[in-house]
Amino acid sequence: MKAEIVSIGTELLMGEITDTNASFIASRLPPLGIELQLVSQVGDDLDVLVETFKRGLLRSDIIFTTGGLGPTQDDLTREAVAKTFGEEMTVQADLLEHLEEGFRRRGMPMPPTNVKQATLIPSAVSLPNARGTAPGWWATGDDGTIICMPGPPRELRGIWEEEVLPRLRKETRGEVIVSRNIKTSGVSEGGLDEMVAEYLGQDNPYLGLYSKSDGIHLRIIARASTEDEAWSLIAPVEEGLTSIVGPYIWGYDDETPERSAGLLLAEKKLTLATMESCTGGLLASNITEEPLSDGYYNGGMVLHSSDRSAWLEVGIPREVVEGYGVYSEQAAQAMAQAARTRMRADIGLGLTGLAGMDSIDENTPAGAIHIAIAWEDGVSYFPSRLPPRRQVVKRRAASTALIELRRFLSTL
Amino acid sequence: MKAEIVSIGTELLMGEITDTNASFIASRLPPLGIELQLVSQVGDDLDVLVETFKRGLLRSDIIFTTGGLGPTQDDLTREAVAKTFGEEMTVQADLLEHLEEGFRRRGMPMPPTNVKQATLIPSAVSLPNARGTAPGWWATGDDGTIICMPGPPRELRGIWEEEVLPRLRKETRGEVIVSRNIKTSGVSEGGLDEMVAEYLGQDNPYLGLYSKSDGIHLRIIARASTEDEAWSLIAPVEEGLTSIVGPYIWGYDDETPERSAGLLLAEKKLTLATMESCTGGLLASNITEEPLSDGYYNGGMVLHSSDRSAWLEVGIPREVVEGYGVYSEQAAQAMAQAARTRMRADIGLGLTGLAGMDSIDENTPAGAIHIAIAWEDGVSYFPSRLPPRRQVVKRRAASTALIELRRFLSTL
Repeated sequence: MKAEIVSIGTELLMGEITDTNASFIASRLPPLGIELQLVSQVGDDLDVLVETFKRGLLRSDIIFTTGGLGPTQDDLTREAVAKTFGEEMTVQADLLEHLEEGFRRRGMPMPPTNVKQATLIPSAVSLPNARGTAPGWWATGDDGTIICMPGPPRELRGIWEEEVLPRLRKETRGEVIVSRNIKTSGVSEGGLDEMVAEYLGQDNPYLGLYSKSDGIHLRIIARASTEDEAWSLIAPVEEGLTSIVGPYIWGYDDETPERSAGLLLAEKKLTLATMESCTGGLLASNITEEPLSDGYYNGGMVLHSSDRSAWLEVGIPREVVEGYGVYSEQAAQAMAQAARTRMRADIGLGLTGLAGMDSIDENTPAGAIHIAIAWEDGVSYFPSRLPPRRQVVKRRAASTALIELRRFLSTL
Repeated sequence: MKAEIVSIGTELLMGEITDTNASFIASRLPPLGIELQLVSQVGDDLDVLVETFKRGLLRSDIIFTTGGLGPTQDDLTREAVAKTFGEEMTVQADLLEHLEEGFRRRGMPMPPTNVKQATLIPSAVSLPNARGTAPGWWATGDDGTIICMPGPPRELRGIWEEEVLPRLRKETRGEVIVSRNIKTSGVSEGGLDEMVAEYLGQDNPYLGLYSKSDGIHLRIIARASTEDEAWSLIAPVEEGLTSIVGPYIWGYDDETPERSAGLLLAEKKLTLATMESCTGGLLASNITEEPLSDGYYNGGMVLHSSDRSAWLEVGIPREVVEGYGVYSEQAAQAMAQAARTRMRADIGLGLTGLAGMDSIDENTPAGAIHIAIAWEDGVSYFPSRLPPRRQVVKRRAASTALIELRRFLSTL
């Protein structure tokens, strides 16, 4: 089954907003065996919308739309679907009653413009929206189906899970596409490409390499008539890859470094504290993206000045600061220990390095990153070398530190 | 002049990658008076590409493409343009020489597949790419122009600035679109909507309201035949809006809270230190997004545990922690003072609050945020109330604190 996504709204064409709704839908289609042909972003223009829908139905079985279901004159998705199918929109008593009830509950009068949110065409059924005033439409004509969903991401995701997905599951009983994402670090894209060469170039299962801020991802994609069959195509490839690149693997599928390390901390009932320099708070911020972190993360310090007194103040020994400098292995180890002691945590994570373009001297090259982990029995040290660009170092050093932490925790 | 963007690459349809190239190009078109009709993401499929180009040329004057210019069999953008125009691709001696020279300089033999990066069709001229092996194409036929650019964002942005923009400037001498973005905080979208009602609903200049994590943006868009004329349409609306919502405005256009506050710190030669709880490091991380922050940001502390001893350890007085709790006005003030003193900064910024869904008691409701700023003459306090969802509080509290800091600094 083939599909297209049409994201609707003039603001999408202003270049200010990235279309996360399309990415959300796109990522949900492969397990349903739906092949995505095209994604379009279209302004609030009736003629362009109708043309896009008509062309889309020639090419694809399903068109998913997001946006344009609001109450204003600019919101034209319903009108465009009606025109595409050559049908009239009429107000439905039950939908209107439900809409008015919603406004009553919030103690607000319903503005008359909202009435259009209670309309339908003969070909469409209404998809209830538990999170907003705009219900979706599921419209089926001779040439295919147009599924209209609201634009606010929270409403879209809700209506997708509760209304669209269950219906799609009933309709799609054809090919299934499944994928497995293997996440590595510590090896270059070129190096990995050579190592896994024997698995590249096949069509099913297909293997792709993608470079990301948390390392290189190996993605295996398989198509088959059932999910089990597709997984049985993936299994031998995954096994083969694991035997080749096993030591570099740190996670799978949608795992992040912070989730992966966080789950181990929670499981082992250990607490964590951090002290970071070149990541400027991003290490702490990544850790606290996980709701569970309230239970295991005690807190952190961000040292952002090379002024020695600031480092002495937080417990880095004078002989380290003056003897080795603040961007050194010794500094990272002292940071890990100071974080652990001062914030009474089981594990201290220290991260320092020079992020900018200019090396200080031979011993302190730009992009050299020092990661240290302190625990009750000692301190471990992990060096890393990153491209010396401020933003790249900031993001990749934070990921690398959490990947090393995960590796370390898994050996405890 | 009308245009479309076609982003090419099967990976874009897998839902993993967001198409930042399209946003980049989209944001560059309005000042050139080019009206964007449609953005599409298309897989590496020759037939779909040719159909997309042919349809696009019926609707628009220019098609911008990104991606699909690499050396592999999957890269089909050149082939699709050639097929659309019904022309043959031939290898160009000068392009081939240049390509081979590039590989020689890096001490690598040129793989034979790369030869296709040295081809052209009669309708196209080559756009040099200083950052990669794939030159762009500027192909002009009877129905319009297709401009092909490489997919890696760094290469795309380079070729845009150096090759595409200068040529477009020569070609577009028609309508100009300019916009002004006024950023507010401390007022709701509904409240703002009512305040500025008299300016809404006009076509030129058009006023739109957009809700963002750093507040509500008021965007004025004007079209005219010259840039001066367009700005003269914007000026009276901006003046009118400023007189109505002036006290809520904190920035313009692409200013961020961290840049806006950072520029004032640099200008006034003041240093900053932070102590934060519910933002979990994001406040520090936002501040250090600015390269200039190396000069004014001393560092910060992240308190992520409600364990009293951690707060006492960093200098929050026992009477505050025990008398008022760690999510209180008094705690924020003590945090600002402790940050300032301990990290020897001119300004201390303290931020605390309860991010989760559950209020602790009447005095500590979820979503209540406490911001304090300490300087040599005292401490200022700013309360804020946010929707009690963890992620929302984290992002909006960090923005709000920096907006308040900017307001405070501008009065010094």
